[in-house]
Amino acid sequence: MKWNIPTRDGAYKTAALARQAILTKPTGALGALEDVAVWLADIQQSDQPVAGPAAAIVFASDHPVSRLGVSAYPREVTPMMVINLATGGAAASVLARLNGIPLHVVDVGTEPYPDPQPGIGMHWTRSVPAGVVGDLVESDAMDEAALEAAMQAGADAVDLLPQDIRIAIFGEMGIGNTTPASAVSARLMGMTAADMVGPGTGVEGDALEAKRALVQKALDRTSDTVEPLSVLRRLGGREMAAIVGGMGRAAERGMAILVDGFIVSSAALVAARHQAQIRDYMWFGHRSAEPGHTRILKALYATPLVDAGLRLGEGSGALTALPLLQASVALHNQMATFEQAAVPDKAD
Amino acid sequence: MKWNIPTRDGAYKTAALARQAILTKPTGALGALEDVAVWLADIQQSDQPVAGPAAAIVFASDHPVSRLGVSAYPREVTPMMVINLATGGAAASVLARLNGIPLHVVDVGTEPYPDPQPGIGMHWTRSVPAGVVGDLVESDAMDEAALEAAMQAGADAVDLLPQDIRIAIFGEMGIGNTTPASAVSARLMGMTAADMVGPGTGVEGDALEAKRALVQKALDRTSDTVEPLSVLRRLGGREMAAIVGGMGRAAERGMAILVDGFIVSSAALVAARHQAQIRDYMWFGHRSAEPGHTRILKALYATPLVDAGLRLGEGSGALTALPLLQASVALHNQMATFEQAAVPDKAD
Repeated sequence: MKWNIPTRDGAYKTAALARQAILTKPTGALGALEDVAVWLADIQQSDQPVAGPAAAIVFASDHPVSRLGVSAYPREVTPMMVINLATGGAAASVLARLNGIPLHVVDVGTEPYPDPQPGIGMHWTRSVPAGVVGDLVESDAMDEAALEAAMQAGADAVDLLPQDIRIAIFGEMGIGNTTPASAVSARLMGMTAADMVGPGTGVEGDALEAKRALVQKALDRTSDTVEPLSVLRRLGGREMAAIVGGMGRAAERGMAILVDGFIVSSAALVAARHQAQIRDYMWFGHRSAEPGHTRILKALYATPLVDAGLRLGEGSGALTALPLLQASVALHNQMATFEQAAVPDKAD
Repeated sequence: MKWNIPTRDGAYKTAALARQAILTKPTGALGALEDVAVWLADIQQSDQPVAGPAAAIVFASDHPVSRLGVSAYPREVTPMMVINLATGGAAASVLARLNGIPLHVVDVGTEPYPDPQPGIGMHWTRSVPAGVVGDLVESDAMDEAALEAAMQAGADAVDLLPQDIRIAIFGEMGIGNTTPASAVSARLMGMTAADMVGPGTGVEGDALEAKRALVQKALDRTSDTVEPLSVLRRLGGREMAAIVGGMGRAAERGMAILVDGFIVSSAALVAARHQAQIRDYMWFGHRSAEPGHTRILKALYATPLVDAGLRLGEGSGALTALPLLQASVALHNQMATFEQAAVPDKAD
């Protein structure tokens, strides 16, 4: 499966770079805010890049590996947090509201299935039937059907967004999911469990060592698997697969993707290794406190915008960074040029 | 001169920490966004911290040292940028507008004095008469009267803000002002010019070496001066003095101060060395690309929120970070608790 990612006319990027050079500031002095504006001008093929409308989609799934003691939280938290996300009490819900953007919650395999709640204010679907899914260590995370269904659920969720959405944010909820994210990214970067496994929501000491041992065992079991989507299927999780599918569809539709932290970045790594052009559609919102995130960022040549020690997931890091995209385009579109302001430019 | 900085009842900080521990996330998972909310609850003595209303004040001044080739830009840019700031075309103007907050421009010694412009939309005053000011290398930056007038201009500017302003942002415009900022912070941290002098708006090669040599000469000339306000007077600049005065007044009024980059942080260092309690009222918006900024941040035990390679000044870094303060208080005030969401907390 390959995505039909649009090719772009480089003229918009060239024009955006030229404009940055005549705005009333030393060229480069706005750092990444300049780069983001140029990136959006290129992605959007526009001289007036925009940072909205934006939308966030949080995919949720259970992980059988969470039965093996890899998380500080019980697995039943996942469906409860789906309700919390959908009813507005989770961090991502608050941040979406603050940004004035919709947050869609898509259940791609929570177990047990949460009871339907009356009056929830947000989109909530269950797209992947609970199927044969494994714990990574003894069995594959998904069979082919589950991988395909989860990726399709991600693409479908993007297709349900209004046509005018220009910025896509993906989030995730799944107790235990730093374990598959560590396994997938370790394999794709040729690293060991020791390189990639960190505390997640807060495991430490012996529990952290046990988590590392489990991931290494999963890596050893699948040592012949290197193709990105196969790695995702055997070592990943359903919400990660949905994010990969969602990212592909978002790029096909020309949306800019504002990437969240560790889990979403591991999905971004899968997507970029599967089809390199998709990387052009991504910017990275923040640097997670999860140590492995910095390795993934490096592998993707990514410099994130915010460095505030977040390690929550749900899309919260990307939602925190969204105002920086708005700042970037406001500066690009609204600052005076040296000529307009009658300010002399640098001597050289 | 000492500021009358309010003492605070620790109960609000304790309560804010307790609330962070029961919100539906692992404690600490929101990183600095948790810390900011607790800080604001403490500063504001409130269980419902706020990140607004905010206001920005940009102080502008000329620097005689700019005649000595320390900047990539001619000194005449300063008064022209005052007009650009006041008429809405500068980066800080755009960001203030985006954030929906007022930007006040206060001229504390630009030379030549810019012609009055009809119809400028922003506050613009000239508070410090052009006095005997020096180039740091051969003569002191200010005499006692100029220092006092500039600091008073800063305090007065804060007093002109509406009573309900809770967040103060200070910015600066002054071609050449990374030179005094480097000199002041080097002295206060016991460092050399080589440690602190960087490219500023873009000097490099021989010009950068010349800038370092000038700063070292200024440091050598004033080697007996260590008292913070004396260091500011001899090695600083009028806009830096205004910021120090403005920060003191803002803290006296219980405002939280969101600190910008290299220049404003060097003023913050003066203020904190002059009177340590003022540090409690500061949060640092971003890490500047100017290398010395990281040293100042370390000296002030500060971890900034945004790391986007900005190096423009004007308050632009703090204005870029302001939405993160809004995210922080929204999360603190609006997230569901474990009990409200019926989500089980961590096992321990």
